[in-house]
Amino acid sequence: MTSTSSPDERAREGQDAQSKEDLELASAYVSDAQYNRNIFFDTSPPAVRLYLLYNRQLAQVLLYFFILLDLSLAAFEEPAVVPLPAWAPMLAELLCLHVFALRLVHYAKVIPRDKFWKDPKNICMIAILALTLADMIIYGALHAAGCYALRWSRVLRPLLLVNVTEGRQLRRAFRSIRNALPQIFTVFLLFIFSILIFSLMALKLFSKRDLKTSDGSPYFSNYADAVFDLYVLVTTANSPDVMMPAYDAGSAFAVFFIVYILVNTFIFMSVFLAVVFNNYKKYLKEEVRQLVRAKRHKMARAFAVLQERREDDGGGGGGEPLVSRANWSRLVRLVQPDISHAHTELLWSVSDDRGRGAIDKRAFVQLADLLNIQVMTLKSRPHPLGRLCPAFYRSAPSRLLRRLVRHRAFAAAYDLIIVINAVFIGLDEDKPGVGDAEWAFLALYLLEILLKLYVVEPRSFFAAHRFWNWFDTIIVVCALVATVVNAALESSGGYTSRQILDIVFILRVLRLIRVVDSIKRFRTIMNTPRPPRQVVYYVFAVAGMELFKGRGKFYEDAGDPAAADCGNPLLRGSVFARLGYCKNNFNNVVNAFVLLVQLTVVNQWHVLSSGFAAVTHKAARIYFVLFHITVVIIIINIFVAFVLEAFFLEYSLDKSDLHTELEKKIEELRLGVAQEAAEEDNLVDAMETADGERRTPEASESGEPKLMFKIASKRYRTVDALLQRLFEADLEEEEDGDGDAHDANGNFANPSFGAA
Amino acid sequence: MTSTSSPDERAREGQDAQSKEDLELASAYVSDAQYNRNIFFDTSPPAVRLYLLYNRQLAQVLLYFFILLDLSLAAFEEPAVVPLPAWAPMLAELLCLHVFALRLVHYAKVIPRDKFWKDPKNICMIAILALTLADMIIYGALHAAGCYALRWSRVLRPLLLVNVTEGRQLRRAFRSIRNALPQIFTVFLLFIFSILIFSLMALKLFSKRDLKTSDGSPYFSNYADAVFDLYVLVTTANSPDVMMPAYDAGSAFAVFFIVYILVNTFIFMSVFLAVVFNNYKKYLKEEVRQLVRAKRHKMARAFAVLQERREDDGGGGGGEPLVSRANWSRLVRLVQPDISHAHTELLWSVSDDRGRGAIDKRAFVQLADLLNIQVMTLKSRPHPLGRLCPAFYRSAPSRLLRRLVRHRAFAAAYDLIIVINAVFIGLDEDKPGVGDAEWAFLALYLLEILLKLYVVEPRSFFAAHRFWNWFDTIIVVCALVATVVNAALESSGGYTSRQILDIVFILRVLRLIRVVDSIKRFRTIMNTPRPPRQVVYYVFAVAGMELFKGRGKFYEDAGDPAAADCGNPLLRGSVFARLGYCKNNFNNVVNAFVLLVQLTVVNQWHVLSSGFAAVTHKAARIYFVLFHITVVIIIINIFVAFVLEAFFLEYSLDKSDLHTELEKKIEELRLGVAQEAAEEDNLVDAMETADGERRTPEASESGEPKLMFKIASKRYRTVDALLQRLFEADLEEEEDGDGDAHDANGNFANPSFGAA
Repeated sequence: MTSTSSPDERAREGQDAQSKEDLELASAYVSDAQYNRNIFFDTSPPAVRLYLLYNRQLAQVLLYFFILLDLSLAAFEEPAVVPLPAWAPMLAELLCLHVFALRLVHYAKVIPRDKFWKDPKNICMIAILALTLADMIIYGALHAAGCYALRWSRVLRPLLLVNVTEGRQLRRAFRSIRNALPQIFTVFLLFIFSILIFSLMALKLFSKRDLKTSDGSPYFSNYADAVFDLYVLVTTANSPDVMMPAYDAGSAFAVFFIVYILVNTFIFMSVFLAVVFNNYKKYLKEEVRQLVRAKRHKMARAFAVLQERREDDGGGGGGEPLVSRANWSRLVRLVQPDISHAHTELLWSVSDDRGRGAIDKRAFVQLADLLNIQVMTLKSRPHPLGRLCPAFYRSAPSRLLRRLVRHRAFAAAYDLIIVINAVFIGLDEDKPGVGDAEWAFLALYLLEILLKLYVVEPRSFFAAHRFWNWFDTIIVVCALVATVVNAALESSGGYTSRQILDIVFILRVLRLIRVVDSIKRFRTIMNTPRPPRQVVYYVFAVAGMELFKGRGKFYEDAGDPAAADCGNPLLRGSVFARLGYCKNNFNNVVNAFVLLVQLTVVNQWHVLSSGFAAVTHKAARIYFVLFHITVVIIIINIFVAFVLEAFFLEYSLDKSDLHTELEKKIEELRLGVAQEAAEEDNLVDAMETADGERRTPEASESGEPKLMFKIASKRYRTVDALLQRLFEADLEEEEDGDGDAHDANGNFANPSFGAA
Repeated sequence: MTSTSSPDERAREGQDAQSKEDLELASAYVSDAQYNRNIFFDTSPPAVRLYLLYNRQLAQVLLYFFILLDLSLAAFEEPAVVPLPAWAPMLAELLCLHVFALRLVHYAKVIPRDKFWKDPKNICMIAILALTLADMIIYGALHAAGCYALRWSRVLRPLLLVNVTEGRQLRRAFRSIRNALPQIFTVFLLFIFSILIFSLMALKLFSKRDLKTSDGSPYFSNYADAVFDLYVLVTTANSPDVMMPAYDAGSAFAVFFIVYILVNTFIFMSVFLAVVFNNYKKYLKEEVRQLVRAKRHKMARAFAVLQERREDDGGGGGGEPLVSRANWSRLVRLVQPDISHAHTELLWSVSDDRGRGAIDKRAFVQLADLLNIQVMTLKSRPHPLGRLCPAFYRSAPSRLLRRLVRHRAFAAAYDLIIVINAVFIGLDEDKPGVGDAEWAFLALYLLEILLKLYVVEPRSFFAAHRFWNWFDTIIVVCALVATVVNAALESSGGYTSRQILDIVFILRVLRLIRVVDSIKRFRTIMNTPRPPRQVVYYVFAVAGMELFKGRGKFYEDAGDPAAADCGNPLLRGSVFARLGYCKNNFNNVVNAFVLLVQLTVVNQWHVLSSGFAAVTHKAARIYFVLFHITVVIIIINIFVAFVLEAFFLEYSLDKSDLHTELEKKIEELRLGVAQEAAEEDNLVDAMETADGERRTPEASESGEPKLMFKIASKRYRTVDALLQRLFEADLEEEEDGDGDAHDANGNFANPSFGAA
């Protein structure tokens, strides 16, 4: 692919601005690099413009809105949470299908035709759309004719999330899982073999002994049941119960179960974790490595479009190719229209650290990473009270108060108040004084916020990154409103709304969380890209609803005689009914999700599966075992592996370099802009102090507006950026090589750039 | 510490042999280095001799025998598995104490007095002995007087294992745990805080709603119960049950429990694993690093004792210090008396790779590692049949048979037989034909072994490393004996012994395991040093026996009315009794161990703890929560961490260099000795073929006996060696430095050696 104007042509233009088309093309490349898109779009100017439109945030938000709408239809279709006439969700789905088709057509116009048809995700999308439409027509016809109809295509809906252009991370996660499967499969075979052997032994040992379980049912009486019972034992769900009859018959039989648990529960499950951890990490690492290569490749393309040769640099040979400041600024504004002027200046000074007024390829390539670092611009503003009535605000008592509020003891005092509050919350609400104390606590919290607002400039106080300030204020205000409403209801009719009380209680307890500052430490873990659990849950929920809907139901009135067997005589006297699991059913999508979460937690899943097997067929157990293998053995292990990895990263970052190389550069520069802010934590306070008391507002030495930057060092705009940081250490050596020939692996053939 | 004769003196002796004292001192150093002992023994000749005696294997075996005896006394003391008069175990314990005291006195004679009293493990041992003696006297007196007496010192017994000189690994593991505790504690506090906050919320939400659990007991009615219930939910043991009343009352309450499980079960438990993994590994790594340094230091000491200067080497300056072959050989024979001459030769040729007849310090230091590599000497022997009746053995049909047995199809045919056998085992024993088929299978297996013996020289077939041959033969012979005994019993009186049948069945199923060859892959995991679980189990078992003995008992006769409440009216109608958990008690040490294993598996542990709380006091739950924190949160996580680490090691070794550097050298040499054995797997076969058919026996070219070596590359004599290999990659840079000044850390001040 070549750009529309050749490098030589552009070089002749010299310092002049690039054409609009070139800038748009370059901005498409940079934006792709920034968000790690890997799309081979057509480089003709109209296609580039269409492509920029395709990547507009609004278009993407709309797309995800319709996907969400499509997914949420499960709540309104049979079996429904909110029953609607059958045509309503079908109409909505038709609308969604139209949107998806439109988006696909748009995509087809942007990229070359052969690329479009070679890409499996497009084929998948078309297939999903076609199958869904076919299913809707068949279902509609059957439904109109009054026959039994199955909406099987609903299982395909989560695949939309995966196959949509934006579903890059999900696709990557699935690819990693698929690549890791062969290794997992080897261990899995061995694991199954171990279970089969142990089951055979159990059958031989116990079947002839006429033992009974505590329910009186036969004990290890046939092979299939023995395998199932021992599989459940791996998950520990039937742990001592399955052993007790044998153990009662002879203490030595405990050895059999202890060896079984040691081998299958402890060793095999750890090995599964190890295999999953190892493989998933390895493949994901490889994917991210390719991602980084592709990013550099795209940035190099953008550079090739914008580059010029400086004649005045060295001798006659044209010098090295550079990008001028003017073009760079226009490019940045095209890529990120909402960027502030100061931020652009900052980025430029980082890129052009020698002050040449133009940057070379190496510095230009960094742009995508630079744009991904969240930089907060803090404008120094005087407190409005200081402007409105300066005499009062700067008086001695006011200054003393402000110093008091800033003092460490103030925070400590409020921590103490929170602890006392916790004790009061624990006390019985109906005791005299306890209810009144709540008002006192509310007043104290309100006072705290007001005092802080008196000290800190309000817009700084409510800056986007001041999470705890927002949290405090919202919680306290909500609690105030809810408490007032509750008190009003109580005094008016003596009637207390349970719902409002619930909200009040939850808000009250949530206030206590503020004591913990260390939650920050775990932010990386919270940001950890979650493996595609939701997709799997949705598929299993929909499949479960088709398989098990209406097989048993929950009666609100516990006195109803049908409640004892969940309305299904097949469940009479079963453990399922006795433990009151009637609400664990597939009768709507919400119940199905809650049930799947319970299966994920594993405990008692054999009771649940036996319940559903009783009302349908023994083979129903397969559904539950499949869910266990998919979610607990594979997906949960991947989750744990990721938490481990994220934790190790967090840990090592804590000790060594907290900031990446790029962030450090900005840090240096920030110090150049505002050196008086020594402590990062008290940045806003320090600014306020410096401006409000020592200098007149709005007048700094240079005449420019006084600005400060703060890096949200651990937050990333995209999960990709986090992932890349996860594997940064391994990628560093390549970073130097940057596609050079000495790359030993040579897997990725770096295309050569015309000008470089 | 200086050795008895100065290096100069020894240098004057030239090529002559060293004094016996010097050799003994050197051998003590080498043996310490080999087994990673870190003992500052007295270097005077009598002390060295005493020290060598102290390290004799027999002395250590006896010591461990008495420790085991002491530990096993728990089975004979009240509450006893096998009741004995009270004086019998006390007499045995007195004997044990004498042995331990004797061993301690021996140790005190070996090391300098000030070192002895500075070592905490000696102080601990003396304290344990004194406390145990005091306890025995008090208990004896109280028992004689008929008062209630408590044998509390039994809790101290496992500490013997830790504080005995040989308990190095256990001490290291405990040190690592202790060092990791502060980090774990931080997370633990946050975890407890989270539980407390959620409990408070649950109390506020549910206590006023008058909900009942499925037993009809109150639901989240007070704070302590709420905390306990939610703690149990973290372990997933009461998973859906604790949620059901709230979920039945309103579907939205499911959100509370789902968030709780996500935060506390999934995230916090993963973080625990991560923290434990990270810290334990880090500290253990540091310990092993010091171990390696100490080892090199000791080898350098041994070298300093034995070194001589070669006059004939270079100019007049005395040349570099060397150790002669004669001294080296005598040293090796002193350190490892059972070593074969050939093995010594091999080790020497590895050390002296330039053939100088003497080795320098660098080569000498490797000796400890070389001795730790298990080298198997394979003597090539002709088949006895070939010697006895060569005409028959070398006839065409015999050779065809031997080729057949060696063919791949032979193994495949037997794999098929095993599979068919598995099906027959699964069939009902009483069906006609099934019992007879077993005889056929036995005959087939016997035939297989005989055929293999016909082909392979018997001593090679039963070599120590031929695990599967041993396994097969033992299993088949045992099965044959048991089946014959069983058949004899059956035909004589029609009476079948259940025990013998059990053994027959287990043996039959065990035979099937042979199909799996890949078990080899997991050997490293099996060899993984287990964290000191047993010690913790013993302490908890003894403590539990004192706390809960006799609070409920198991009745063999289920019809006994007392069986319904385990003989304790307090348990009447409890879940504990209803599920038939009566045998889960602390009435003897075996039952206590089985119960603790069940608690480790976690499921239903709240039922067990509630049961014991019902018969004693609510505070009894503390015992169970403590056990959960100690074993499940800390020790199991360490176990998982080690499996992960071992797996990663196994995995990376698989891909890159399978043999360590040292092993490679031997490998090269082995090829030099016997080049015809190309495939390692068929080594014995190839040897047999080569010798038996192409050459006359006992006559090889060089006149020396024909030998081959095989390295048991993945087996280690000591766990320390495995650990060192685990961290080999990290230690490699130091390996080059070897105590040089450029060691950046400088933590370990390497003493300078007089001569080096």
